[in-house]
Amino acid sequence: MIPNLKIDGERLWDTLMETARFGATAKGGLKRLTLTDEDKMVRDWLAAQARALGCSVVNDDVGNLFVRRPGKDPTLPPIAMGSHLDTQPTGGRFDGILGVLGALEVLRTLDAAGYETNAPIEVVDWANEEGSRFSPAMLASGVFAGVFTRETAWATKDRDGIAYRDALERIGCLGTERAGAHPLSAYFELHIEQGPILEAAGETIGVLTGVQGMRWYDVSIEGQDAHTGATPMRLRKDALVGAALVVAGIEAIAAAHGPDAVASVGTLDVSPSSRNVVPGRVDLTVDLRHPDDKVVDLMEADLRRLLAETLTPRGLTWTENLFWDSPAVHFDPRLVDCVEAAAAKGGWARRRMVSGAGHDAVYLSRVAPTAMIFVPCEGGVSHNETEDATPSDCAAGTQVLLDAVLAFDETLRR
Amino acid sequence: MIPNLKIDGERLWDTLMETARFGATAKGGLKRLTLTDEDKMVRDWLAAQARALGCSVVNDDVGNLFVRRPGKDPTLPPIAMGSHLDTQPTGGRFDGILGVLGALEVLRTLDAAGYETNAPIEVVDWANEEGSRFSPAMLASGVFAGVFTRETAWATKDRDGIAYRDALERIGCLGTERAGAHPLSAYFELHIEQGPILEAAGETIGVLTGVQGMRWYDVSIEGQDAHTGATPMRLRKDALVGAALVVAGIEAIAAAHGPDAVASVGTLDVSPSSRNVVPGRVDLTVDLRHPDDKVVDLMEADLRRLLAETLTPRGLTWTENLFWDSPAVHFDPRLVDCVEAAAAKGGWARRRMVSGAGHDAVYLSRVAPTAMIFVPCEGGVSHNETEDATPSDCAAGTQVLLDAVLAFDETLRR
Repeated sequence: MIPNLKIDGERLWDTLMETARFGATAKGGLKRLTLTDEDKMVRDWLAAQARALGCSVVNDDVGNLFVRRPGKDPTLPPIAMGSHLDTQPTGGRFDGILGVLGALEVLRTLDAAGYETNAPIEVVDWANEEGSRFSPAMLASGVFAGVFTRETAWATKDRDGIAYRDALERIGCLGTERAGAHPLSAYFELHIEQGPILEAAGETIGVLTGVQGMRWYDVSIEGQDAHTGATPMRLRKDALVGAALVVAGIEAIAAAHGPDAVASVGTLDVSPSSRNVVPGRVDLTVDLRHPDDKVVDLMEADLRRLLAETLTPRGLTWTENLFWDSPAVHFDPRLVDCVEAAAAKGGWARRRMVSGAGHDAVYLSRVAPTAMIFVPCEGGVSHNETEDATPSDCAAGTQVLLDAVLAFDETLRR
Repeated sequence: MIPNLKIDGERLWDTLMETARFGATAKGGLKRLTLTDEDKMVRDWLAAQARALGCSVVNDDVGNLFVRRPGKDPTLPPIAMGSHLDTQPTGGRFDGILGVLGALEVLRTLDAAGYETNAPIEVVDWANEEGSRFSPAMLASGVFAGVFTRETAWATKDRDGIAYRDALERIGCLGTERAGAHPLSAYFELHIEQGPILEAAGETIGVLTGVQGMRWYDVSIEGQDAHTGATPMRLRKDALVGAALVVAGIEAIAAAHGPDAVASVGTLDVSPSSRNVVPGRVDLTVDLRHPDDKVVDLMEADLRRLLAETLTPRGLTWTENLFWDSPAVHFDPRLVDCVEAAAAKGGWARRRMVSGAGHDAVYLSRVAPTAMIFVPCEGGVSHNETEDATPSDCAAGTQVLLDAVLAFDETLRR
């Protein structure tokens, strides 16, 4: 059922390495913050490659860049593939980038073969995915999906006070097309896993069925500052000991809802933070995730009970606030099946899994049938200049991307 | 046996409040860092008061200020009373200050009564007790006691790069007497408790038998940074969860050696400290104290076992370094008895106790018979602008100081 086209793994790798010069860091990573000169360079480069293939290039009004190759049926909305070309301040060469340049490799493969799809095919570079320069992350795909307004995005400022719209205009990427104006038949995103599961299992392809539900909390625990030498244990209200028991209890919450639950404390700040003062205050953040929102509800209830049962007997008070709530995403089963079939065709070891991290696909899934493909990254390390992936895994993921797109395109044949 | 002299509680309180203007903060506390203009003002004020009583005033070569009232027998070394007039950056009006101004009140009482002691009587303001501007704390009493060299103290620099010797010279307090050159018959230090024990027990006078042994450790725990969403619990090496179990275990170490043991973690720094990154590293400090050094040895062994048993099974590595070791101090039994007798004479509720905090008396005990007197402070709070003590408790402690000095002086009668 899937036409027999082969992507060129060497060309793909050369392209990944070629564009890694835009924002290259001394340690072998990338610093390519969104809408900076480095970002403009890679966007211009992509546009030039697209035009060389005879494709059209359009920026929408929040800087999402669309490269389009026509299909046989101009009335069909395009099948889009993409991710993002911006990086963290000390980012790597693959996070997001593989999804865009893998999509470009798909276009080049179609072009080289002279293959005509039913639907138009699009490569998309979603702007400001990382959120490092302009917060929040996934801002422009969020506008495309109607999660944020264009005006909200435009008004967002970076740390230097530069507005998103002005930054867009400065690099010549403020398009006239309204973000979200054109519908998509489907959206496929190839990405490195950013976690250790595939590598640990010796598998090449992750067939994503969705994205975990995720909630972030701010917790502040108040006790009483006291002299470490002069205050007997029985007269203390040590906020750090209370916080420590909460941290240990949060790990236990994940275990109680295992193996798919994860629960983490990423930051913990102690006040007054002096060697000889019993801490009177601790502020910490909690991150609870599970593929099923109902389980996240249970974990949240566990967290509240943990706080009360741990802190009350110690005379500690606390506040707990839900800071961010991202419901679980379930990808389109037809697209997931296309990815599965593509991985099976290539014979790669694979697994169905959910993404633990957010991606542009989270928002895209609200307005288009969506699926994702993961390939392993070394040690599960990402958001780091040492981030790495093998040429063969990148090629495998890109082949699966091509085949999944072609499989889905077959379903659009009239 | 103890001559019947009465200190003037009102005069003492007025003096405490009068000098609290030197470095007064908006919140009612004091910022009087050592050897600053504010410190110079209070030192000059003390010298003027001393001269008005006909006493001599001498600075030694590390800025310790000695006020001396002659006794009948000029061959006897002086009986010294004192503490320090410098404060923390957000300090209170009593820590250290009560010990110096209480001693001044003793001199004034002796002067008003025309009472002639056997030994000369000294009031000492030990420089740089707090260690906030020049590290370490108790620097100048340490030089007096031979713990540090004069040259070490002189070369110590503050954060602005100003050397201790230059700071001394600038405020005109670089004396010619070599620190430690003159012996003391005894040293008595009155201090607020800086802890909650006396207040909780409704007692007025702490008769100190010594100072706890104390050891400070730096502990670093290494795991692996990982994405909180993409990393299953079983594949984590979470340094913060390991650290949390260590913090809880340190509390248990204190309980195992209770009720006199205290064990604390005052600082805990998480890296990389991001909401969605499993912490790969935690640095924390440990503070273990007990009046008996042998018990501190046991606690240290417990700490090492705790680290190994907690961290090894989690794949975490660690380093642990003893940063500071202050052996237990046992005050001179004759002086302790003088304090006890003085407290009994006044009829105050009292207890024998050890100091949990370090004081100039720790170093002085190496070169002179030493004892200390505690009075309660509100809520046990110190090193804080809200630090407070009642006029009657301050007066009681000062009366005990006078009577203890007189009782000891009686033992020197030839």
